[in-house]
Amino acid sequence: MGIIVQKFGGSSVADAERIRRVALRAIETQKQGNDVVVVVSAMGDTTDELITLMNELSSSPSDREVDMLLSTGEQVSIALLAMTIEELGYSAISLTGPQAGIMTEDVHLKAKIIEVKPDRVLEELKKGKIVVVAGFQGINSNGDITTLGRGGSDTTAVALAAALNSEVCEIFTDVDGVYTANPRLVPDAKKLSVISYDEMLEMASLGAQVLQSRAVEFAKHYGVKIHVRASFNNSEGTIVREERNMEKGTVVTGVTYDKNVAKFAILGVPDTPGIAHKIFSALGDARINVDVIVQGAKSNEVTDILFTVAQTDIKKSRTILEKICLEIGATGILCEEDVAKVSIVGAGMASNPGVAGRMFGALAKVGVNIEAVSTSEIKISCLIKQDSTEKAVKAIHEEFGLGK
Amino acid sequence: MGIIVQKFGGSSVADAERIRRVALRAIETQKQGNDVVVVVSAMGDTTDELITLMNELSSSPSDREVDMLLSTGEQVSIALLAMTIEELGYSAISLTGPQAGIMTEDVHLKAKIIEVKPDRVLEELKKGKIVVVAGFQGINSNGDITTLGRGGSDTTAVALAAALNSEVCEIFTDVDGVYTANPRLVPDAKKLSVISYDEMLEMASLGAQVLQSRAVEFAKHYGVKIHVRASFNNSEGTIVREERNMEKGTVVTGVTYDKNVAKFAILGVPDTPGIAHKIFSALGDARINVDVIVQGAKSNEVTDILFTVAQTDIKKSRTILEKICLEIGATGILCEEDVAKVSIVGAGMASNPGVAGRMFGALAKVGVNIEAVSTSEIKISCLIKQDSTEKAVKAIHEEFGLGK
Repeated sequence: MGIIVQKFGGSSVADAERIRRVALRAIETQKQGNDVVVVVSAMGDTTDELITLMNELSSSPSDREVDMLLSTGEQVSIALLAMTIEELGYSAISLTGPQAGIMTEDVHLKAKIIEVKPDRVLEELKKGKIVVVAGFQGINSNGDITTLGRGGSDTTAVALAAALNSEVCEIFTDVDGVYTANPRLVPDAKKLSVISYDEMLEMASLGAQVLQSRAVEFAKHYGVKIHVRASFNNSEGTIVREERNMEKGTVVTGVTYDKNVAKFAILGVPDTPGIAHKIFSALGDARINVDVIVQGAKSNEVTDILFTVAQTDIKKSRTILEKICLEIGATGILCEEDVAKVSIVGAGMASNPGVAGRMFGALAKVGVNIEAVSTSEIKISCLIKQDSTEKAVKAIHEEFGLGK
Repeated sequence: MGIIVQKFGGSSVADAERIRRVALRAIETQKQGNDVVVVVSAMGDTTDELITLMNELSSSPSDREVDMLLSTGEQVSIALLAMTIEELGYSAISLTGPQAGIMTEDVHLKAKIIEVKPDRVLEELKKGKIVVVAGFQGINSNGDITTLGRGGSDTTAVALAAALNSEVCEIFTDVDGVYTANPRLVPDAKKLSVISYDEMLEMASLGAQVLQSRAVEFAKHYGVKIHVRASFNNSEGTIVREERNMEKGTVVTGVTYDKNVAKFAILGVPDTPGIAHKIFSALGDARINVDVIVQGAKSNEVTDILFTVAQTDIKKSRTILEKICLEIGATGILCEEDVAKVSIVGAGMASNPGVAGRMFGALAKVGVNIEAVSTSEIKISCLIKQDSTEKAVKAIHEEFGLGK
């Protein structure tokens, strides 16, 4: 058999009992004849505790020192997990990100992995050891510790899987796979056995938070097969891999929604070239992600521009927009917080016309008004009132026959 | 001016307020025109907390993983201290033991430093930074993290001071220097302005716990001047350095005592060659330190052998001695726990006869009985009843005129 990389998040190693369960899982996988590499995050609230301590001492700590501080969290996890595996009678060794050869660019807090040198990992696997690697961290060309930012541990796991030519990268989560819709909202939602990288990317960015987009992009680039599965049982989860024809029959793979959305409208924008650029590059410079951009029909040489941002970016966006409004001579800004985005995702969509129509029809049938629409090759998103989210998701899920 | 290495222990960085005080101290030293390297230990109880967690998971964790776990404690301290210095408007950088070039042998839990490669430290000093280094840790030839064991941070500081050709290595403690006797026992004890390495070694091993013996040995070997001083005020402490003639007049430098002592007596030992070797090598193999060995006068070809061990070693010692007793045909074992050792230390002792007599006389005068005596070139120790310790120390301190 080959090498299997397994990744467990912070909640999976939050206490002694859970660490023991992770250890047993890794041992079980090794017993089945595999070489096993386990990537873990910091235990539960460790990171938050360190941040509290940090805030007592510094109002704006340098990124390098934040990385020095936070990377200790994973180091504690790997040592404890390796000890636990040894206590259970199996051979293990823990490696920090630097020791595992995770080389990153010279950036802190959100470094990108530029290379993985897997020599030490391979050497230890050859000795029959379960290799426990600290997620979320690496080393730059100065020999300094860097961290990878949000979703960093998923990325570590996928990068190691790529460098080690692993069979599969197993990402253990507190859900048992990727569903056609959120099962808490849609009781008859079905677990998907397979999903393509692109579909997973759309699902991930649209709010199905089982897997970080960054890790999926990495996996797509290097062709790493990901298995999203439950940490609490042994059932098969969802395989994320390159699209295959076997899924041909499916037009829509799943329905997702995102309530962390606020709608901005800039009113009375003079309809001259370069204005949209001015608005959106200012927001981009402030690292505000903008989605669902709609420019209305113009009348009297002015137009309205509508778009969404994350609710956490409302304040920052408003400050920037007020300034821009004055500059470009727009008449005003509106902000609506009680909106949501519902989307359908499916790789088969591009070659199946009429999908959008069916979606709009389903929404109309249950009386949900569409405020704006945005589409990509494999996705259609509608902006609706937030309190209609549940009704909307259920109606669309049923329209496309996604249930059990 | 030159480079100054400052070392602060775990209690000096136990909370945000104390970390701030350490930062101010380092900044003050830099403002006086020095290049400053600060070595710190883990915050207060961090290490204990990690050990508790570890014990929940493993009954006998491998030494390598223990080092991986425990070394995170210092890493947290250095990051927080560097941030705090930056917050106060000065430039700082934290370095782990490995980053600071602390190379150790391939041993865990108690690795010895074999080399210090100070390139990175020097490079950062050149940039005007206060360099904050994690004590207690290093890296071995495999790239694994090692820890230096008890007193490791003192040793890190002295080793860095040696490699950097520092002016002085300042060890900050919760006492303000080395005294002629414990000031809590002898109110008129005097702070020593200078003490030699050898005297400090005897003082340290005899219970004056301001400085780890290992660090003093290291300093002696490389000629590093140590300044033991208070973390809570700015007064001059005690300089530890090579003996100089200026201290000629002083015969006895200080009086120390140790209550962590138990006396064993092996009775009726056959007086044949090799017997003592048998007893003490068995204890040595079990890593039990033996002190104050006295062999009584023989009668009828048997003799009694008396010696002391640390109270923590009583149980282990008794098990070993009972076995040996049977083997060599001794008649029995006695153990007394209510003993203490009082000692005088002084480099001038060797060239001044009559010192022992004066010590014994002082003890006799206050009615303290001497149970055994042990001497070295610069030290005389007497074993006495534990409840006489205070009386004994005071009497000796007065006899040699050590008070203010």
